[in-house]
This record gives sequence, structure tokens and C-alpha cells, in this order.
Amino acid sequence: MNKVCIVGVGLIGGSLAKAIIRSKQAMHVVGFGRDAQRLQAAQNNGVITDYTTDIKEALNGADIVVIAAPVGSFESILKSIQPHLSETTVITDVGSTKASVIKVVESVFGSLPSNFVPAHPIAGKEKSGFEASDGDLFVGRKVIITPTESSSSEAVEAVKSIWQAAGATVDMMSAASHDELLGMTSHLPHMLAFSIMNYLISQNPSASLYAAGGFRDFSRIASGDPIMWRDICLNNKEAIVKHIKGYRDTLDNLIDVIENENTTAIETLFRDAKSTRDQWLV
Amino acid sequence: MNKVCIVGVGLIGGSLAKAIIRSKQAMHVVGFGRDAQRLQAAQNNGVITDYTTDIKEALNGADIVVIAAPVGSFESILKSIQPHLSETTVITDVGSTKASVIKVVESVFGSLPSNFVPAHPIAGKEKSGFEASDGDLFVGRKVIITPTESSSSEAVEAVKSIWQAAGATVDMMSAASHDELLGMTSHLPHMLAFSIMNYLISQNPSASLYAAGGFRDFSRIASGDPIMWRDICLNNKEAIVKHIKGYRDTLDNLIDVIENENTTAIETLFRDAKSTRDQWLV
Repeated sequence: MNKVCIVGVGLIGGSLAKAIIRSKQAMHVVGFGRDAQRLQAAQNNGVITDYTTDIKEALNGADIVVIAAPVGSFESILKSIQPHLSETTVITDVGSTKASVIKVVESVFGSLPSNFVPAHPIAGKEKSGFEASDGDLFVGRKVIITPTESSSSEAVEAVKSIWQAAGATVDMMSAASHDELLGMTSHLPHMLAFSIMNYLISQNPSASLYAAGGFRDFSRIASGDPIMWRDICLNNKEAIVKHIKGYRDTLDNLIDVIENENTTAIETLFRDAKSTRDQWLV
Repeated sequence: MNKVCIVGVGLIGGSLAKAIIRSKQAMHVVGFGRDAQRLQAAQNNGVITDYTTDIKEALNGADIVVIAAPVGSFESILKSIQPHLSETTVITDVGSTKASVIKVVESVFGSLPSNFVPAHPIAGKEKSGFEASDGDLFVGRKVIITPTESSSSEAVEAVKSIWQAAGATVDMMSAASHDELLGMTSHLPHMLAFSIMNYLISQNPSASLYAAGGFRDFSRIASGDPIMWRDICLNNKEAIVKHIKGYRDTLDNLIDVIENENTTAIETLFRDAKSTRDQWLV
């Protein structure tokens, strides 16, 4: 490839840019955004090869454009991209929700373009900004591609290639399966981590003086970006609410066995949890 | 001191033993337990200086005896200790719950001995056994001492000294305050971590294939010892149930703002959570 355009040079966009540069997948990795100063700093740090704040220039001759911004900003980004997009440019994204991204693309473009391929790398950090970017972020991680019924196989292969070159394993599934699955493994734990901080605030914030490493790790993801997580909530609302409610039922069951001092049931619950956690680590 | 007796040479008992040996607080750090082979292995690994499976021998001439076993085993341990205990030996423990420990001591001894000083180091790992022990485990950590109305100031000072020599900061509070506080900062997150694994098992255990670092850290404490955590649940039942219920109310509020797509409220909740978490890290 000659040129990849990254819309949003943050943690994920910046990490992908670095991986593309390193694996020599493209000559030019052009960052697009509104803040020229930040883009200049990203270029100075070797995160991108070029940058521009002009979307027409950013897209001119691009083989792939990767939208790496919070899902809530997709509509306005897509509207600004659409007039300047060549028919041969592959469009992909790294959004944490997929059904909602497909919906907004369809609404902005009038139909689903054959060169649009939604994707989501299962990797992250609680830090944001290109300063936290890392060319190794995707090594050994999974990337889920959720092709639409219109996605061409050439476009799917192009997107698959950049992620494989970044060291990731690519899996394919439907957008609905993705949203249900990630609702459980990513969105739910984030909701629970934000909530333990909110509960702590409501009760006794200085209690954290007596928190150890367990609390630190458990709450780490509560340091995630509020805007990004707000957008994820709004864009995967049904799966997230379903999982919080299901989890609440699991808590009700735990309350029940503790209140009844059902020794065996408590121990079995903890033993099953530990065994699944330990097996998963292997 | 000449001799410290550690009842239960596991993660915490073993780490304290190592710290006492290193800081030269006592000539002999004697491990007591039922399994001679394990104790021999702990001695071979430099965790303790001596060991015995005979409680009379273990206590003979001991300046301090530290009970470092799951809280559920305290009653039988105390019953075996009592006949052989000299009036000058200080008794302390490292149990994760304090009101229940005081209750069982009072019940076994008939009244609260003046040389009994309950304590709880706020440090741990998800691993157990002396193999995981670490003489630095308590460096920079807090130890909460919850003296009873009978605890002599000499006994309190003796217990304070060994923890300070291990590198910890010692705070004093009532057993009730301890149980309420730790119910929030330690017991609640453990209950929530066990529960997310139980929820995952109930829904789709293979979903963990698509889990990233966030889930890994969030669920780390679900690898804790089931017996220890069962005992903690039974021994701090009221505070734990109260906190799970309070947390459930926080989740209900989150469900409510997500279902109503209350964008501002969602963002504020996440922003407050992040800001408290970030401040705490400093």
C-alpha cells in the first residue's frame, strides 16, 4: 500500500499507525484530526509519517482509511469523509461496538458501501492519547472483523492484512455476536469498575486509604476514558443493560447464600470462579 | 525477642516470618502446623528457622504467637493453644475479619486476655502457600490493629513493633470500623470478582477467549483461596451483605441512566469514578 489514513491518532489509532510503519505495510501513514499541534507532536514522536487537518488531502490517494475515534463522533466524521472518498478506498474502524457503527455508516452513505469493513481490536489500556500508543499493542491479541452483507472479499482481505501484520489474530463474526460477546467481556467489567468507584464515593471515599493491590487491579479500568465509555453505553445499550441485569441476579444469588450461611454453596461458587479464572490464565 | 511462633506458614504467615528473620526481631521463628513435610520445605526455603507439629513445643518460651490461618479454623486452633499458653506470651492474628476473631477468642478463653491483640495486614496476593511468601510484602502497606478493651499497652506495642519492623505503617481502629471499611475495600471487590466469573460460567465460558487485559486485571482476585473467602463471608456477613446491596443500588442507578440514554448523567458517573481512581493512584 502507498497510503493509510488514520482518523484520530489516539491510543488505538497511534498504536496501529506505529505497527503499520514498522511492518512496512504502507509508505505513508497520514494522521488526520482537528488539532495540528497534537498531530505535529505525534509525527515528531514517530507515531505517523505525515499529518493534515484537511480531510480532502487526508483521503486523496488513500488505500485505507481507519476511523479510530470514539463511536459517538462517527456520524460527523463519516459526513466529512463521504464527499472526498474514492471508490477504491477501503473504510474500516476500530470502534468498540459494531451494530451501531454499521447503522451510522448505512445512514450517512444511504447504503452499505462494498469497501466498508467494520473491525474491533481486543486490546487497550486505561490510558489514552498517542503518548500511550505502542506498536506492540496488538501482538498476540484478537481482532474481530464483522463484515456486512455488502463487504467485498477484497476489502475484508485488506483489513485482515493490516491487523495480521500488526501481530494480531483475526476472527470473523456477526456484529450482533460481537456486541453480545464484548458486552460481557469488556463492557460489563468496565461498568462494574466504574460502579465500585461510584459506590465508594457515595459511602466513604477515604476508605481507599485501606485498599490493597486487589482493589487497585479490580478498579484499574475505572480510569478509562469517560467519553469513550459513555458512547459505548449508548451504542450497545441493550447488551450492556442485559449483562448488568444478569450480573445483578448473580449478586442476588450470592447475597442469598451468604445471608443463609450456606457454607457449601458459598465455597462452590468461589471454587468454580477460581477454577475458571485459573484455567483461563493458562 | 527470642522466639516467635507462626501458626500457619502460608502466604501471610510465611511473609511475616521472612520479614521477622530479616529484621532480626527474633532469634527463632518457629512454624507450627499439621503437615511436617510442608513445614520442612518452608524451613529448607528459609521461610522459618524451626518448625514443629507439637503445639506445646511450639508455644514453649514463645514471646509472640501469630495465628495466620483462615478465620474458620481459629476456634480449633485457639482450643489447642490455650492449655499451653504462658501468661507472658502475646497472642495476635492476621485474620481478614476482626469482630468475629475477638468473639471466638472470648468464647474459647472465657474472657479477653490482656495479651491478645487482633491485627490485620492490608496486603495480599491471589496466590497462597509459603511458596508465594515475600519478606517485602508488607513494605509501605498498612496494618490495622484493633485492640480490645482488655489489650494491654505492652502487648499492643509488641505487635506494633513486629509490623513496623516488617516495613508497614500501623493504624488503630475499632474492630467494627475495620470490618465495615474492609468490607468495602477488600471483601466487596472479591465478591464482585468471584461473581463476574460465576456470571460468565452461567452465560458463555468461552467468551473469555475475547477478553483483554481489562478483564484479566478485573478478575485477578477471583483466583483467591475459596476457603479463606468463604470464611470471610461467614465472619463479616452483615457488612458484606450491606455492601453488596449498596453496590447493587449503584448498578440499578447505572441501568436507569443507560436505559434512559441520559448522556450527561452517564458521562458524569464515569468522570467521577475515573477522577477518584486517578487521584487515589497518585
